[in-house]
Amino acid sequence: MQEEFLKVIDILGTVAFAASGVYAAMQKRLDVFGVLIIGFVTAVGGGTVRDIMIGDTPVSWIRNINYSIIILSTVVVVIAFKSSIFKNFKKTLLVFDSIGLGFFTILGIQKGLMYDLNPAICIALGTVTGCFGGVIRDISLNTIPLIFEKEIYATACILGGCIYFLLLLTPLRLEIIEWVSILIVFLTRMLAVRFNWRLPNIYCRNVEY
Amino acid sequence: MQEEFLKVIDILGTVAFAASGVYAAMQKRLDVFGVLIIGFVTAVGGGTVRDIMIGDTPVSWIRNINYSIIILSTVVVVIAFKSSIFKNFKKTLLVFDSIGLGFFTILGIQKGLMYDLNPAICIALGTVTGCFGGVIRDISLNTIPLIFEKEIYATACILGGCIYFLLLLTPLRLEIIEWVSILIVFLTRMLAVRFNWRLPNIYCRNVEY
Amino acid sequence: MQEEFLKVIDILGTVAFAASGVYAAMQKRLDVFGVLIIGFVTAVGGGTVRDIMIGDTPVSWIRNINYSIIILSTVVVVIAFKSSIFKNFKKTLLVFDSIGLGFFTILGIQKGLMYDLNPAICIALGTVTGCFGGVIRDISLNTIPLIFEKEIYATACILGGCIYFLLLLTPLRLEIIEWVSILIVFLTRMLAVRFNWRLPNIYCRNVEY
Repeated sequence: MQEEFLKVIDILGTVAFAASGVYAAMQKRLDVFGVLIIGFVTAVGGGTVRDIMIGDTPVSWIRNINYSIIILSTVVVVIAFKSSIFKNFKKTLLVFDSIGLGFFTILGIQKGLMYDLNPAICIALGTVTGCFGGVIRDISLNTIPLIFEKEIYATACILGGCIYFLLLLTPLRLEIIEWVSILIVFLTRMLAVRFNWRLPNIYCRNVEY
Repeated sequence: MQEEFLKVIDILGTVAFAASGVYAAMQKRLDVFGVLIIGFVTAVGGGTVRDIMIGDTPVSWIRNINYSIIILSTVVVVIAFKSSIFKNFKKTLLVFDSIGLGFFTILGIQKGLMYDLNPAICIALGTVTGCFGGVIRDISLNTIPLIFEKEIYATACILGGCIYFLLLLTPLRLEIIEWVSILIVFLTRMLAVRFNWRLPNIYCRNVEY
Repeated sequence: MQEEFLKVIDILGTVAFAASGVYAAMQKRLDVFGVLIIGFVTAVGGGTVRDIMIGDTPVSWIRNINYSIIILSTVVVVIAFKSSIFKNFKKTLLVFDSIGLGFFTILGIQKGLMYDLNPAICIALGTVTGCFGGVIRDISLNTIPLIFEKEIYATACILGGCIYFLLLLTPLRLEIIEWVSILIVFLTRMLAVRFNWRLPNIYCRNVEY
């Protein structure tokens, strides 16, 4: 049951990140194969980095052809319907990126728990899983990674991860805890962009940077 | 016999990519150690990324000192004869890059077959092996990776890989199939640059990118 | 005894690189979480890349929560005392970067020796351990990696590594050899920047780069 649920989360996150990669690549006007490749690395990047650091190899997209099929289908669908569904690519990219962030953060935490790791390390793994696909996408497209653009990004993952472990102390059912944490990551990121939230500034005057 | 043949391909690809790294680093006017390091990462980058994703560690250049010897020799030879052989560094870089691309794509596919992977995954591994050395080289030199410069690049690997698996259905000998596929990757890339081939444009008007 | 000593070196290197990451991130005026993340990836980056190439997974910061604690403490201390201790961030970054470079180079060499690797490969692993944290830091911050900025950088690691193996032939005690090598890496880098040392130029005229 829980395992089935994780598979669903994995598929939804993969679709969301593949779509975010497609939109980012289309903004840069890459050709059709470039769009496919960026969609692919965005979708599998975070999980790949997590798995090679844990030592769970071959990484999942190599073991399981389904990832490639899901990503390819997503890319085809997004390209086919690109103008009929979404008019504003930048906003659409943000939405898919934030959805993927929520799903993959919780997935990374679960993977850490499966390896009996410390909660803090689990949250770090969740953050890696959530953020690295986007980082690789942005570095490949030679843009400043979204993660460092003075926006709340990794912070959303860390916050969602902390709430996940707090909720584990309550009698709530695991699936509910997971959905709540996913929602918190997603909402934190979306609201932060919408309302231009900033983290506290730590700089002082009179210092030569 | 087949194993011997793969070793030859591996050596030739390593030499070609090391040379391409040296030319790229010389264009950026790096010092002599910078040139050596870029030659090294270009030559071993693709295979390293492939091996850590498959879980075949320690990666080959760590297990086998011969890679370092081959790369060092290549770097020394290219630097020594740089002006007497080649007058145009940009074209020379392209040629070596394309040769390496052909060899390493087929090598990556073979590695995937050794692990009994699905043909589509094998082609993806071949593309990773072929492309990542160049990607790491370009990111290190802070240039836009060649792979995304609106040129046919990964496409050549994917095409060569598809033809490889089609030819496997014929009664041709394995070595012939490998040489043909290597040639197709090389020629696709060279002709694409020469004749300015572009993949179909997938963009539409009236959409805000 | 020797093992204890390596742990001390590991902690000192981690602190130095975390601090260098904090200073680099503050120069770019990242928010407080961005500073923490850059401090983290700078401190663990080199060792992580080394460990996944060797196949020693899960990598050390996942297995051992102490790394996270050390890094977090360093980040907090540096931020708290940033203006009262150091007035010039660029110079401070250089010092911490050079200290970390020394410690991590020798640590990477020791790890290679534990795996019975060839001295040349050990030196390469030491260079990877020393340099990659800084490379990842600089790529993340979208600056040209220090390693390629026409400064002596990897060269210092390679020099220190060669001297380490030369000293192993003498009757000196292992700890002394390690400290001397660490000092050589540190001093080479600092003096190179101070006196503007350059490696020999390998370029010639009459060639189109």
